[in-house]
Amino acid sequence: MREKARASGVKFRPHVKTHKTIEIGRMQHGGATGPITVSTLAEAEFFAEAGFKDITYAFPIAPEKIKQATALAKKIDRLNLLIDSTSALQALEAHGGPFDVFLKVDCGYHRAGVDPDSEASVRLAKAIASSKAVRFHGLLTHAGHSYDVKTVDEIRKIAKEETGALTRFRSKLSSDLIRSAGSTPTMSVVDRFEDVDEVRPGNYVFYDAFQSTLGTCKREDVAVSVLATVVGSYPERHQAILDAGALGLSKDLGPNHIDSKFGYGLVCDLNLRPLPMKLVALSQEHGKVEAANPPAIGTQVRIMPNHSCLTSAMYDVYHVIEGGRVVDEWKPVRGW
Amino acid sequence: MREKARASGVKFRPHVKTHKTIEIGRMQHGGATGPITVSTLAEAEFFAEAGFKDITYAFPIAPEKIKQATALAKKIDRLNLLIDSTSALQALEAHGGPFDVFLKVDCGYHRAGVDPDSEASVRLAKAIASSKAVRFHGLLTHAGHSYDVKTVDEIRKIAKEETGALTRFRSKLSSDLIRSAGSTPTMSVVDRFEDVDEVRPGNYVFYDAFQSTLGTCKREDVAVSVLATVVGSYPERHQAILDAGALGLSKDLGPNHIDSKFGYGLVCDLNLRPLPMKLVALSQEHGKVEAANPPAIGTQVRIMPNHSCLTSAMYDVYHVIEGGRVVDEWKPVRGW
Repeated sequence: MREKARASGVKFRPHVKTHKTIEIGRMQHGGATGPITVSTLAEAEFFAEAGFKDITYAFPIAPEKIKQATALAKKIDRLNLLIDSTSALQALEAHGGPFDVFLKVDCGYHRAGVDPDSEASVRLAKAIASSKAVRFHGLLTHAGHSYDVKTVDEIRKIAKEETGALTRFRSKLSSDLIRSAGSTPTMSVVDRFEDVDEVRPGNYVFYDAFQSTLGTCKREDVAVSVLATVVGSYPERHQAILDAGALGLSKDLGPNHIDSKFGYGLVCDLNLRPLPMKLVALSQEHGKVEAANPPAIGTQVRIMPNHSCLTSAMYDVYHVIEGGRVVDEWKPVRGW
Repeated sequence: MREKARASGVKFRPHVKTHKTIEIGRMQHGGATGPITVSTLAEAEFFAEAGFKDITYAFPIAPEKIKQATALAKKIDRLNLLIDSTSALQALEAHGGPFDVFLKVDCGYHRAGVDPDSEASVRLAKAIASSKAVRFHGLLTHAGHSYDVKTVDEIRKIAKEETGALTRFRSKLSSDLIRSAGSTPTMSVVDRFEDVDEVRPGNYVFYDAFQSTLGTCKREDVAVSVLATVVGSYPERHQAILDAGALGLSKDLGPNHIDSKFGYGLVCDLNLRPLPMKLVALSQEHGKVEAANPPAIGTQVRIMPNHSCLTSAMYDVYHVIEGGRVVDEWKPVRGW
């Protein structure tokens, strides 16, 4: 991703929410502390402490967190905040500022963000541009709906909508505004980043079983897994129990429209070769698999998560593997 | 639950996995450190350190954890382990012992446990009884399928199956064996514990939106909630965004057979009165609600979780509320 951004001449501001570790944050910048995107103020503070000085907090700021954000902004070169309403602008104005801000634009995902084609959005953008409490740097969008399709061609189409929405909206405002986009599916399937000034992919550091089903990565690209042990084996009912349940894997089945053949995660052997079994149910600590020949008690498996962001967040430490051995431990930040 | 156990003349060994805190563990025993049930060795060690001396680790022991369990067993009065196969018995025998064990019995949930009506199960029980590596204390079951029904009458029927399976199986073995049962739905709907020697409910300490839908508690019994703030409000599309997503709530929709009218959690005002909105989607940090009149940015809400065990495990601290004020902070154990 970094190389593709460089070759495309766009700024690279990877998201760190998938892994939440300083070590991988630095790897995303080839060993340096470059610009990053975070999803919580806890992440922002953790990475700031480790020398990351240019941070976009890509989540609509809650009014009660403005004070905390103000304190952090003073310690680093740049803390970009995200707003998408007059009410959020007014909340910032009430705290003085000046704050560095991006306006969140809805490119079709319909989660947060303003409609790029409405007059009200243009009025809001102009109010932001003229407010003394903020420095208006750009437009930011996230094509989360790129997870809701089935083919790479459909993802390519969304990639065009994503940058198109920013460019179209910007044409009614100022060409100085940075167009910032980011979603791992759309960033993975294009050969080159076009019609955009900054990219913010995150999930690509690990990818996951869902992304490989979607076709945005190959299965061998998936870089995180959960080691689990068979603790119960019931050949008579073709089932086994693993010691990884909802707290070890999270209960994300991936988008509803994809009928996962493997259930709550892809069960593999220790070399990450998929095993002929389906992870059919998770309770708090139990994972139930169905298999024609269930593995014996004590068998160890590696589970490729459906959604690596949610699964990774369940752990206090990553065990880093090289050549089949644990060579390091990396600790993620937690909380908000 | 404690009072019902006392009045019924059965041993009370509540589960602590729902809250994972010393403070609530003591509350379950009226302020003392009585017998408890845990779901991880991390919980067992945490509670042992705080003076809980009689612990049942109610999860099939993984062979690689026997050494750790042996070390813990030496520090307390009793660490009961759970097995349900010849293979698990042999793994214990390979480590010497003697270990205190319960045999897990499947009363219809079909997760872990042996079939109480099979001859093979009787043979296994007899092998355990005659093994020099173990002290065979009893039969343990969990009626997890009590979550899969729709009416209190159906739960009462499962409550009878749960204890019935233990009693029927024990009649082929020794009457000295303890019959240990536990699931919050079955333990909540009976007036008195019968046909059982020990009970292990856990979820009842908090209950949750799902249990109230099931009818095992009233809504006002639910004792845990997630405080969240509206960070985006979109009246034109009847939506709002909360700063509580999959990491703040977990993605448990409750059992599939119950069509949750409120989605990923019941959104309430600060006095826990349900608000007319539905929590329709969760991404990592965003919760999306639909409402005819979405609340304004900055509005605070309390979300009653669908499944309190999974939601509570997402946090490093509980803020204890009394009279609308935070009066204490309790820290749960994490990990495995």
